[in-house]
This record gives sequence, structure tokens and C-alpha cells, in this order.
Amino acid sequence: MRTLITTSGKNPSGKIEDIMKCFSEAHELGFWLDIEAPDEADYELLEKKFKFHPLTIEDIRHQDQRPKVDDYENYNFAVLFVAGLNGDDIKLMEHHLFVGPNYLITVHQEPSGELKELQERLHKSPELAHGKPSFITYLAIDTLVDATFPVLDKLDDEVDALEDEITDRATQQALTRIYNLKHTVSELRRFLGAQRDVFQRLITHGIHLQQQDMTLYYRDVYDHMVRQYETADSLRDLLTGAMDVYLSTVSNRLNETTKALTVIASLFLPLSFLTGFYGMNFAYLVTVLESPYLAFALGVATMVVATLIQLYFFRRRGWI
Amino acid sequence: MRTLITTSGKNPSGKIEDIMKCFSEAHELGFWLDIEAPDEADYELLEKKFKFHPLTIEDIRHQDQRPKVDDYENYNFAVLFVAGLNGDDIKLMEHHLFVGPNYLITVHQEPSGELKELQERLHKSPELAHGKPSFITYLAIDTLVDATFPVLDKLDDEVDALEDEITDRATQQALTRIYNLKHTVSELRRFLGAQRDVFQRLITHGIHLQQQDMTLYYRDVYDHMVRQYETADSLRDLLTGAMDVYLSTVSNRLNETTKALTVIASLFLPLSFLTGFYGMNFAYLVTVLESPYLAFALGVATMVVATLIQLYFFRRRGWI
Amino acid sequence: MRTLITTSGKNPSGKIEDIMKCFSEAHELGFWLDIEAPDEADYELLEKKFKFHPLTIEDIRHQDQRPKVDDYENYNFAVLFVAGLNGDDIKLMEHHLFVGPNYLITVHQEPSGELKELQERLHKSPELAHGKPSFITYLAIDTLVDATFPVLDKLDDEVDALEDEITDRATQQALTRIYNLKHTVSELRRFLGAQRDVFQRLITHGIHLQQQDMTLYYRDVYDHMVRQYETADSLRDLLTGAMDVYLSTVSNRLNETTKALTVIASLFLPLSFLTGFYGMNFAYLVTVLESPYLAFALGVATMVVATLIQLYFFRRRGWI
Amino acid sequence: MRTLITTSGKNPSGKIEDIMKCFSEAHELGFWLDIEAPDEADYELLEKKFKFHPLTIEDIRHQDQRPKVDDYENYNFAVLFVAGLNGDDIKLMEHHLFVGPNYLITVHQEPSGELKELQERLHKSPELAHGKPSFITYLAIDTLVDATFPVLDKLDDEVDALEDEITDRATQQALTRIYNLKHTVSELRRFLGAQRDVFQRLITHGIHLQQQDMTLYYRDVYDHMVRQYETADSLRDLLTGAMDVYLSTVSNRLNETTKALTVIASLFLPLSFLTGFYGMNFAYLVTVLESPYLAFALGVATMVVATLIQLYFFRRRGWI
Amino acid sequence: MRTLITTSGKNPSGKIEDIMKCFSEAHELGFWLDIEAPDEADYELLEKKFKFHPLTIEDIRHQDQRPKVDDYENYNFAVLFVAGLNGDDIKLMEHHLFVGPNYLITVHQEPSGELKELQERLHKSPELAHGKPSFITYLAIDTLVDATFPVLDKLDDEVDALEDEITDRATQQALTRIYNLKHTVSELRRFLGAQRDVFQRLITHGIHLQQQDMTLYYRDVYDHMVRQYETADSLRDLLTGAMDVYLSTVSNRLNETTKALTVIASLFLPLSFLTGFYGMNFAYLVTVLESPYLAFALGVATMVVATLIQLYFFRRRGWI
Repeated sequence: MRTLITTSGKNPSGKIEDIMKCFSEAHELGFWLDIEAPDEADYELLEKKFKFHPLTIEDIRHQDQRPKVDDYENYNFAVLFVAGLNGDDIKLMEHHLFVGPNYLITVHQEPSGELKELQERLHKSPELAHGKPSFITYLAIDTLVDATFPVLDKLDDEVDALEDEITDRATQQALTRIYNLKHTVSELRRFLGAQRDVFQRLITHGIHLQQQDMTLYYRDVYDHMVRQYETADSLRDLLTGAMDVYLSTVSNRLNETTKALTVIASLFLPLSFLTGFYGMNFAYLVTVLESPYLAFALGVATMVVATLIQLYFFRRRGWI
Repeated sequence: MRTLITTSGKNPSGKIEDIMKCFSEAHELGFWLDIEAPDEADYELLEKKFKFHPLTIEDIRHQDQRPKVDDYENYNFAVLFVAGLNGDDIKLMEHHLFVGPNYLITVHQEPSGELKELQERLHKSPELAHGKPSFITYLAIDTLVDATFPVLDKLDDEVDALEDEITDRATQQALTRIYNLKHTVSELRRFLGAQRDVFQRLITHGIHLQQQDMTLYYRDVYDHMVRQYETADSLRDLLTGAMDVYLSTVSNRLNETTKALTVIASLFLPLSFLTGFYGMNFAYLVTVLESPYLAFALGVATMVVATLIQLYFFRRRGWI
Repeated sequence: MRTLITTSGKNPSGKIEDIMKCFSEAHELGFWLDIEAPDEADYELLEKKFKFHPLTIEDIRHQDQRPKVDDYENYNFAVLFVAGLNGDDIKLMEHHLFVGPNYLITVHQEPSGELKELQERLHKSPELAHGKPSFITYLAIDTLVDATFPVLDKLDDEVDALEDEITDRATQQALTRIYNLKHTVSELRRFLGAQRDVFQRLITHGIHLQQQDMTLYYRDVYDHMVRQYETADSLRDLLTGAMDVYLSTVSNRLNETTKALTVIASLFLPLSFLTGFYGMNFAYLVTVLESPYLAFALGVATMVVATLIQLYFFRRRGWI
Repeated sequence: MRTLITTSGKNPSGKIEDIMKCFSEAHELGFWLDIEAPDEADYELLEKKFKFHPLTIEDIRHQDQRPKVDDYENYNFAVLFVAGLNGDDIKLMEHHLFVGPNYLITVHQEPSGELKELQERLHKSPELAHGKPSFITYLAIDTLVDATFPVLDKLDDEVDALEDEITDRATQQALTRIYNLKHTVSELRRFLGAQRDVFQRLITHGIHLQQQDMTLYYRDVYDHMVRQYETADSLRDLLTGAMDVYLSTVSNRLNETTKALTVIASLFLPLSFLTGFYGMNFAYLVTVLESPYLAFALGVATMVVATLIQLYFFRRRGWI
Repeated sequence: MRTLITTSGKNPSGKIEDIMKCFSEAHELGFWLDIEAPDEADYELLEKKFKFHPLTIEDIRHQDQRPKVDDYENYNFAVLFVAGLNGDDIKLMEHHLFVGPNYLITVHQEPSGELKELQERLHKSPELAHGKPSFITYLAIDTLVDATFPVLDKLDDEVDALEDEITDRATQQALTRIYNLKHTVSELRRFLGAQRDVFQRLITHGIHLQQQDMTLYYRDVYDHMVRQYETADSLRDLLTGAMDVYLSTVSNRLNETTKALTVIASLFLPLSFLTGFYGMNFAYLVTVLESPYLAFALGVATMVVATLIQLYFFRRRGWI
């Protein structure tokens, strides 16, 4: 699905002739061509009409790239990712960008709500582009980069919820969730790091993409990327810490359980011994000679005293 | 709220005409304009009168930046943070600085006791500024940087208190506090690191802000930043160690509890067996034939001997 | 075993005269000579005829090198590895490459399915080489590098399977497997890192191997290497996390077991005490005076109530 | 307290006139002025007479600096630390050095045995200085750096002693000591690292301090610093490992304790059951009908057999 | 003990006159002088005759250096280490090398089997040196570096053996061995890293030692060093993992022990209760009224059923 936006505000249909007309009008008119879920016709357009390098066409076909910027003679080819969440799993959506002197071509498989929205804003108010193709490029890249923020916010919320859950319950499910979330965050962090590095190279080495007058704006985008990376880094630290807290909580509970066992055993084992003692056959002979009521009272008293001593002892240790 | 301080010691009100007069007097008079909790009028002043770049105005409006220094044609724009504590959570207060040839403009949302105090000192003794705007800038930056020290000292005290608590009691609450403090300190460390790096770039690359004659002074400020970062780093190490100590303490306690259980069980299970043995029906037949008193004495003797053997054994192992 | 492929599509036998003819034909004809399991004749060919440096011949003889690229006056000597799996152990297969102006010579001990397949494809369709020896070199290196992907995929599957197994069963065997897999992945990661660094130097410094017109293609190969390294890195992280999960799972289970023990002991120790109490000799005297049936009912009632109280208590704690 | 040493061997008193005379004698005579526990007169001397920069005077007054070297127009200002031990806590003693063309001024708060000793040696044999102020500077710095070695040796001994203690006893006290020592060593390591970096910058950038002809000697001092840093690094590793060993030892012991409990419970619970069984009321009826002696023998035999089976089982498992 | 080898194959005795003659023969003849366990005469020879810098002489006297290369006007001074094993402890044997235009002087305290062997080979076949002193230097350095390989192989074997031992037995001794081995390997790794860095600087900066025509050969030696470092690094990883496996194994065992205890307690505590129940005094009254045989059968049946239910339950949980 092709969408064509021009800096002039005129938005012709995405027909190939129209596109090529924009392309050939000697930099007089800037345009942005967005291709969603490209088919063979699109690949052919890019390769035959625009004459992009076969390697870049192959990259678009195969997907599964890393963030990168390659510079060719007349254009730059960039791969940027937008992170999405699919339950706890991360979904990285590839976006390919061809940036030439007066055009931007974006190619992506899945529909991108953010780009769509930007296109509509540009439709309604073409003055947003300041009449410069470089400004459209900035707007598109800025939009793509900022699209990852909601994902980080969502992960942050989940980690917060998980932290509370751990100290409360420390179930095996919580452990599995920490592990999965950590996996997700590590992956996200790695990809954000790679994207940031690519972007830094872009700013420092100043390739086509980064028209001189846009430097200040791209510095801003770069700052956003650094913040995203740092957030992912911080989430990862939190999850590592959560794993430790989980382990400590489980240990703590084991201690509580063992204390309970010890208290029960300490209370009743001596009592059982006493009942056994008074139940011995010769003990019977001994005690039966005197008043059975006194003997009974004595027996019960022994037990009560033993129990009280133990309870005092447990309380001093803080076990009950 | 605008406050205006000039190097001459004359402190006109914060009216826009006065400010612009200082600004336009061709570097003859240096001034420091402090804007607290800026409103639309302030934003307009900065954008329309001072003609600062729209991006920097946007940064000020949105807050939530990272420490940075951007250089524009006629001025530098710096973002510095002051750390504050809100219970165990850290509160980073953004300060935006515009540094021009003869002026410093500071913008911040929350009131800053430290800057207020500096302004009063400059009011009373204008000679502190040595009549140079660059010296005011140094004083303001030095004040902002040093404002983070008390926070570090407070964290240090809390970590110390926590350490003592852990080995004493090792409660689940202590664990949660370690975790939260570690989170706070990590965040603080990350931000101090970023701030330090920004500042180093500042010193090394020598942009406007750092007037040639102030280099020595800024090197001093940089040293303070390095010390702050190292303190945060050291606190983080301590907390990581505290987590390990916590885990070990819990394990140790579990061991103590289990020892207690084992001692109790070892003492009373054999005794119970003996009472049971002497309580068996045929045992009754056997023992009753002879002197019941002797039998009783024998039974009790067996128990005492068994108990003494065990107590000896436990003491040798160091369990009691 | 020698295999000779030429850019012209004519594929003479691997006789030494034929090879030397290709070699001496003043760059008119490019060729690729593949030597599998070299014998003395091959070593002599390389040393005496091609006059390669004795050090490189020694490297080929001894194997056990690291990934590297050395540049000699007329050729480059590169060592690349292909990873294979042998159960859970990794097998690194060394490949030595001599790259000259119009030739590529590959030497390896073990048969390489991937190179064989490439040779057959070049046999059938010589136009694949674009008539340039540099393109054959690219194809061979690309093939060798990509041959490691299936190994990474296989490891990825095993790690996934292991993760599920751990939380299910957490056996000692699973632990040993994690440890072994981690060892394997660490080794793989180290070697992929070294290979990537070597390749980067290759691209950046531009030695013979990387003929100017192939730069774009080698950048692609480099991207594959980076992805391989990152995958290994990610697997390592996963396995480290799996170790922690394993430990937590074992702790959790210990807790469950101890809970079961505590429940059993807490239920039956008091009951045993009660039966012992009612079995005491004087207790007999006391109770037998009144209705034995009432006494029995009372005894059983005490036990039932004690048990119910305990069950309620356990349920509230979530133990049963 | 001022001490004045000159290269000529003449050692005038520390009176200000004498010092200033040495200072002004146009590099003809080199001298070393050592100021211990400086008072206002000393600060004034440094600021008014020597005209050192106010910032350096402030540094001396406030102490609490980091290792650093600043270069001013006519002299270098260096901050070096000597580590001392105060129980398990580390005490860092600051030393400030002013190094000019023909003089060295050292300022420190606490008495320094090492410097004192060096001064006495220079008193007795002025030829040690080779008549060059630069050589005195070298000797002083070498002395200060080497003064940290005994501290490292002492820490090394303590860590060794601690290691033996852990595997023997693994008390809570040992844990606290590991933690404290690790804290101390980390701090020491951080400061040694900073000092080493400062010194490297000194050697590489070659500021005044390092007179050309002394380069070889300072390289030696630098090597000592690197060795100190590596020792601290190694101690830190050892202590981290000791923490792990501690945890493992505690776990191991818990296992031993639990084994003991299991053995005891496994031996006596079945025995108690058997005594209980033979003590049942109807069991009495059953067994009493026949020979009570046989019944008794049978009962005891059952118990002995049960115990033997269990003992065999425990030995096979290696528990007893 | 002095040994003198010349490139010409003539090997005069180690008398000082002979050595000095070789030295002064204006680079016509290259020689290698090996000094083992130097005494005062040797130190004097080096300092007075060869006029080496006093600092290097001091280094040789004091030993305890780090790997390093210092360049002096007419020669290079290098410190290389050979690792040996002394039980589980590592022994680093220092070798000092003076490398001049036409000579190599090696100084070491302990006898070095590897150098001895090389000397004998050079005696027998002087053509090995290609008549060049630089080649002798290469051979000596190569020999010294490769002498560390057997130590690494031995450590590798020990780590392998230890791994098997841990999962089998997990004794406290094994833990201590892991700890000691890790210490050894860390130390070895640190020293190999330092040695590698020194050597890299040697190759990159190209000081005297590395005569232009030997570059290719030294690159080979450097590759060996990198491999040694990587092996030590890998051993360290393995030992860290072994520590984790140890801890997990102990935890696992604790779980097994606790399971055994729980099974025993769960089987016999209810049985004891039942025997106690049937042994109660009033129970006797109740049951004795009817058929004692039926009562006995009923009692035993209750016990058997209770036991069977429990056994079924344990099997389902996989405990027995």
C-alpha cells in the first residue's frame, strides 16, 4: 500500500507515474513515499525505477536486519525498529528508510499507527513540513523513535506490579514472570543500544540523511534514544534485583516454616515423653501406691511448667 | 518569578524592559536572571526577546531532559540536575541554564533554596562576582552541583544504619529497604555519571560557557562531580554486599533453627522410645516379676545416661 | 583432495600443472582452489610453487589457530572458523584462506558440506561469479560465515526446551545441562567475538582481500557476524538466568517439602500427646471412675477440635 | 611545623626569611619545605609569599580532595594519598605537593613517619639528592607511594586468616568481617586506581613536575602504583569468593544438621511405633495368651532388625 | 652461572673477557648470554661493563616486577614471566631480558629447562639462528612464552576432574579446591593479560627489540599469548560456574534429605498416633468388650490403609 505526501501539500495518488514525476523534478519538490506490506510491484519500483542497490532490496525482502545506516552514492539506507509488546514478548517492527536529496521512502511490513497519524497531520497542515523534505524526514524518524516510549512505560508498570507481588507471595509463577520479563527487557535493551549507536554515528559522521540545518533537531532525537536505552538498563537492574529479593523471600519463608516446625516439635516432644513416662509399667506401680489424684496433678503440673518454660524461651528468641 | 542580579550590584526589578536593557547594553553590564516556575510570559520573553532556539524553549516546557550542554550560535544551553530526597525516593530537580557572553539565565520549576541563598549573598556583597558575569556563572553552577552532597550524606547514613539492622534482625522489611535504596542509588549514580560526562566534555572542548579564565575553577567543580559519582558507586557496592549479607544471615538463622530442632528431636525421640519400651505389655510382664523399684531406677538411669551422652555430643559439635 | 574452479566456468582437474597455469596466467583468469585434508604434496605445492611464507604453512599444519587476517606482500592469509555441534559440545572447524589478486585458496581438514554445495552451484552456473575472482571470494566467505547460523538456532531450541524443563522438574541433570550448555555458548561467543573483530579490522583497514568494489557486500557479511555474536550473547544471558531460576526452584521445593513436614508434625504430635495423656496410668485411674464411654467421646472430641483448629490455621497461611 | 632541606646540604631553620631567600635565589639552590599541620601563618606564607593560586590554598585548607595534578603557570599542584589502617578501617592521609622549578613544598595534616625518615637521611647524606631539586621530588614521591605497601601486606594477611576461619567455623562474625574488609579494600582500590590514573597522565603529558631526566625514575614509581592497584583488585576478588564460600559452607552445614535430624528421626520413629504397637490394649490380649518371654524376644528382635536395616541404608547413602 | 652462545656457532666459555669481546666487536658477531641465579660478579658485569642503567640493575636484584618493556638509548629491557605450578599454587618465574643491536642477555633466578634445551639445540645446530642475533631473540622469547602452555593444560585437566567430582559428591573439600583454583587462575589471567598488553605495545610501537624483519614472527608469538589469556579467561568462567553448580547441588541434596525426613515422619507419626489411640485407657474399655481379635485386626487394618494412602501420595509427588 503506497501513500505519497509532498512538501507542497498536494498529495497525488500513489501511482508510479506520479511518484517518478516527483522523483525526477530535479529537487524542486520534496516527497515522502510510504510503502506498507510491499509486494513485487513495489520491489520492482524500488529496484528498477529508483535504481536502489540490489543489496538493499534484498534486505527489505528478507527483513530480520539489525539497526543500521548504509550510505550509497545518491541516498542513505537506514533500518530502524519500533518496539511493540505482545503479552510479555517484545515484537520488533522493522522500518526501512531510503533518504535521498529530496525524498524519503519508508518501507514496513506491518501497519504503523504512528506513521499513519503523521501522514494525516501533514495532509491537513502541510506547513508542518516547512516546505523542506529534510523536515519531513526528521518528523518521520522522530515519530518512529518516540513510538517505543509507551512500550517502556508499560514494562515499567509491570515491573512495579511484580515487585509488590514478590514480597507478598513469592510464587513460582512470579519467578517465571521475572525471568521472562528480564529476557524481554534484555532484548529490548540490546536493540535500543544498537539503534542508539547507529544514530550517534549518523550524527557524528554527518551522512546525507542529516542535512546540515537539521543537526540540532537530530540531537534531540538522539537524546530520546539515550533516555530509552537508560530506561531499559534501569529496568534490567530492577529485575535482577527482584530475582535476588525473590530468593531471599523464599529463604525467609523457609526459615519461618522451620521455626513453626521447631516450635511444635519442641512443645510436644517433651510432653509426649512425660505422658510416656507416666505411662510406663513400673511407673504405674510407683505412682499407684500413693494418691492417684495427687500423682495426676503432679503430672499435669510438670507438663504445664515445661510448656511455659518453652514458651518463654521462644518469645525471647522472637519466634512466636 | 523572575529575579535579576547584575554584576554592578544594582539590582533592578525583574521587569522585561529592565532585563532587555541589561541584555542590549553591549556586554557592558553582566547580569543573572533567575526564573522560577516559568509561565507563558517567561517563555515568550525567552523565545521572542532573547530569540533562543525553539528546541530549547520546548525542552524547558517539557522538562524530563537528561544532563546536557548544547551550543548555539550566541549562547550555550545546559541542563543540570540537583538531587533531592523524598523519603527513600530520589527527586531530580531540573535546572536549565542559558549562558551568553554577558549573562546567565537559570530556569527551574521548583524553588531552589541554594540559588536563593546565593542571590542574597550577591545582593549583599556584589564584590563576590568580581564584576564578571563569568564568575556569577561559576558561582551558580558550583552551588547547583554542591547541592547534591547532602543527599549523598543522608543516603550514606541510611546505608550505615541498614547494615547494622541486617546482621541484627534480617527482617523482610530490611530486604525491601535494601532493594529500594539500591534502586535509588543506582538511579542517582546513573544521573551523576551522565552529568559528569557532560561536564567533562564542557571542560575539554571549551565551549562559550567556560570562559578561558575560569578553567581552573571549573576543574574544581568537575572534581566535586567525580567525587559525587564515586560516592554513589561506593554506596551501590555496599548495598549489593548488604544483600549478600542478608541472604547469608537468613541461611545462618535457618541453620540455627534446624539445629535447635535437631537437638530437641535427638533428646526426646530416644527418651520417648525408652518410655514406650518400658510401657510395652510384655515388658510389663517381664519387669513386674522382679522389684518394681529397681526396674524404675534402671529405666530412669537409662534415660539419664542417653541424655548425657547426647548432650556431650552436641557440645562437642558446638550446637549447644 | 583438490578442487579447482575458475571464473571462466572451465573447471580443469586439480593437477598441479593446471593450477600453476591458472596462477601464472597474469591475472587473466581467476580461480578458486579448495584443498580438503591436505597431505604433504599439498603443503609442498603451497610452499614451493605458490611461495607462501613458511609461517603460514606452519599455521596450516598445526591447526589450533585463532581467527585472524595477516597481510603478506602478494596475498592475505585469513583463518575463519565454522561452528558445528557434536552433542552439546561445540566443534570449531578451521578454514584457512589465501587470497591473492586473482585467486582464492581454501584449506581445511574436514569435509565442508557448505563449500561443496557452493562449488557445485558454481560448476552449474559460472555466471554466479560475475567473472570476477573477488566475487568468488565473497561467496566463499559468506557461505562459511552463514554456516554457523544453524548451530545457533539449534542451541536456541535447546535452551528453550531446557527452560521449560527447569521449572517443571529441576533435576540435577538439568543443572548439569545448563552448565555444559553455558560452557559451550561462552566458548562460541568468545570465538564469534574474535572472528567479528578480525572481520571489522578487515573492512576498516581495507586489505587486499576486500577489493574496493566488494565493500558493500562485506559490510553485509559483517552484519551477519554481529548478529551471530549478539545471539550467542543473548543465549548466555538466558542460561545465566536459568541457573538462577533453577536455584530458586530448588529453594521453593525445599520450602514445599518443609511445609508438608511441618503440617504432618503439627497435626500428629499434639494428637500423639493426647493419646499419651489419656494413656497415662493415673489418667486411667481418674477417667475410669466415671463413664468410660463419655471419657472416650471426650478424648476423641479433644482430638478432632485440635485437628480442626490446626487445619484452619494452615489454610489461612495458605499451606494446604 | 616547617622543615627545610636544601640540595646543598645546608639546612637552615624554617624561618620565613630563610625560605624566601632559597625561593628567590634564581634557581641556584633547590630546596624542600615540609609543612606539617599547617596554621594560618603557613597558609599566608603559601598565598602571599609564594603567590600560589587561591584555589590551591582552599584545597589545602578543606582537605577531602581526590588524587590529582593541576598545572599552574610556574608550578604544579599535586594531591597524593598514603593509606593507613585503623583496625579494619582505612585511613587516607592527604599530602599536598607544590612542585616548582627548584623547590618542592609538601603539606600534610598528620605527622608522616616516612617523610620524617627521608628528611633525616637527606640531612645526614645530602649527596643522596644528587644536588638536584628534581631528585628530591622523586625521592619524596617514591617514599609516599611506597608507604602504602605495608597496608596492603597487612590486609593480605587478614584475608588469608579469614579464609581459614570461614571453612572452619563460618560464624556470623566472620561474615561481618568479610563484608567490612571488602568495603575497606574496595575503597582502597578505588583510591589507588584514581592515583594511578593521575600519575599516568603525569608521565604521559609530561608536566613540570616530571623533569625530563627523571622520566625513567617516575616510570618505576608508576609500576609500583600499578602493582598496588592490582594487589587491591586481587584482594577484592578473594573476598568476593570468600563470601560465596561462606554461603556454601553454611548451606553445607545445614545439610549436615538436617541429615543428623533425619537419621535420628528415621531410627526412633519406627521404634516408637513398634513400642506403641506392642503397647496397644488389644495387642496385650493377643500376646499375653502365649509365652510373654517369647513375645518380648520377638518385639526386641523386630526393633533390632529395623534399626540394622536403617543403619545399612544410611551408610550406603554415606550419611553416617 | 653464565652460558654464552654466539650466532657463529662458536661457543666460548662464559668468561668476562670473552663476553666483552663479543660485545665490542662492532656488531659483527651476535651473541646470547644467559645468566642463571646471578651473583655480585654478574651484577657488576651488567652495570660496569655493559653500562646498563642502575634502575634496571635494581629491578633485577629485587625481582618482584610486572611484565614490562622499557626502552633505553642502546638497548631494551624486558621482564617476561613463565608460569609454573606448585601443587595448586602458581609460581611465576621472572625472566629479565636485555636486548641490544647484536646481543640478548637473559637473567633469571631459577633454572629454566626450556632455555637450557634451546641452548643445546643452538649448540648442536647453529644454523637454527640463521646467523642473526634477532632470530635468537625471537627463539628465546618464543620458548619462554610457550613454556606457559603446559601449565594451562594441567589446570584445564584439574578443572575437568573437579567438575565431575562436584556433581558426584559436593564435599567441602571440593569447594575449597574450586576456591583455590579460581584464585590461581585469576592470578594467572591477570599476569597473562599484562604480559599480552606489554607485548602488543612492543609490536605496535616497534622498539629496538622487534627488528623490522621479525615482525611476522612476533605476530605469531602475540597470537600465542592471546590464546593463553583466553584459555585462562575461559577457565575462570568455568570455575565460577562450578561454584554455582556446587551451591545448587548442595541445595538439591538438602531437598533430598528433607524429603526423606518428611516421608519417614509422615509414615510413622500417624501410625504412632494410631497405636497410642488404641493404647488409651478408655479405648481399652471400649474395645475389650467385644472380640479382641477383631479389634486387633481392625487396628492393624487402619494402619495398613493409612500407610498405603501415604505411599500412593508420595509416589505421585515423585518422592519415593
